[in-house]
Amino acid sequence: MALPLLPSQLRNLLEDLERLPGVGPKSAQRIAFYLLRKSPDTLKKFADDLQELRGIQRCRVCGMLTEREECQLCRDPQRDHGVLCVVESPLDVLAIERTREYHGRYHVLGGVLSPLDHVGPEDLTIASLAKRVRTEHPREVILALNPSTEGETTTLYLKQLLADTGVTVSRLAQGLPTGAALEFADDLTITRALAGRQTIEKR
Amino acid sequence: MALPLLPSQLRNLLEDLERLPGVGPKSAQRIAFYLLRKSPDTLKKFADDLQELRGIQRCRVCGMLTEREECQLCRDPQRDHGVLCVVESPLDVLAIERTREYHGRYHVLGGVLSPLDHVGPEDLTIASLAKRVRTEHPREVILALNPSTEGETTTLYLKQLLADTGVTVSRLAQGLPTGAALEFADDLTITRALAGRQTIEKR
Repeated sequence: MALPLLPSQLRNLLEDLERLPGVGPKSAQRIAFYLLRKSPDTLKKFADDLQELRGIQRCRVCGMLTEREECQLCRDPQRDHGVLCVVESPLDVLAIERTREYHGRYHVLGGVLSPLDHVGPEDLTIASLAKRVRTEHPREVILALNPSTEGETTTLYLKQLLADTGVTVSRLAQGLPTGAALEFADDLTITRALAGRQTIEKR
Repeated sequence: MALPLLPSQLRNLLEDLERLPGVGPKSAQRIAFYLLRKSPDTLKKFADDLQELRGIQRCRVCGMLTEREECQLCRDPQRDHGVLCVVESPLDVLAIERTREYHGRYHVLGGVLSPLDHVGPEDLTIASLAKRVRTEHPREVILALNPSTEGETTTLYLKQLLADTGVTVSRLAQGLPTGAALEFADDLTITRALAGRQTIEKR
């Protein structure tokens, strides 16, 4: 490698950039040379924004990212307290909010159960979910976890955990995504679409 | 967009990230959530490294990136002062150094002539190249610019510029790259490989 020829400042930044997900040595170089041409002000803003991340907290009610103790959604009196949607990450909240079809509240687990990655119930906000269900008494809890093996395990775990609370527990429908071609769908998706088929005319 | 739901600190960082070359909204989110999990120390180091970029200068002799006034290569007494290799960017210097086949010195133009992007001779280190050739009297100047339209234009421009200096001017060979298949090579590459063909046995 001829990298020692580059100034140490540039090599340090290249190291930082290469650690980012989805950024390899080539893209790190491209980004670093782009940044080299930027004004000191732009670099300072970027550096400040990075450090500002420290000010971000988890909402003490639902686990969403927030600048305050309680997040915007939990503070919103318009949201339906009767429905609680359980998701893995803050990005899932954004995805569901984009549909404008859901008006209840959320609970962000912060991940899914994954014994292989040493993620147990105590690493997620599962205890606070159980407590919320017992104190807030929602009509329904929607488990909106990803359809992965870990997501399935977590869905089953939560179903059992909430069994004695008397709350209705539902999960997102599984089937063919909009725009997908049946011939290219995987077996499991087709199996689930068949099992979850909906009667459109009953005779 | 449901992004207003995210803390402002996170939105600011997402904006910075999306401006980087090759980083779209999805990769920006992935990077931002990765950084959210990092320790304050890691974020501080990244932020400091960004600001340190300001300390990087262009070598006053050759235009290479450097921490001092003169770069490592220009300070190296071992390098052959008889050959001067002209490249577009500092990354090209690294690429040529990796071969360990070149022992002369470099001149980094900082780009190529491109009227469409308003890049003229005065935006590049062309004046200092002409001066170097007149004062350092190298035996040979190798024009190692990229085989793009702008690279070709710049090569021709420099050839004319150096015409009256009496220096030998050469350019990198063009032809099939190692490992390439003739059937997949583009027309121009084959044309140039034919034009530049080398006699291997003369009868």
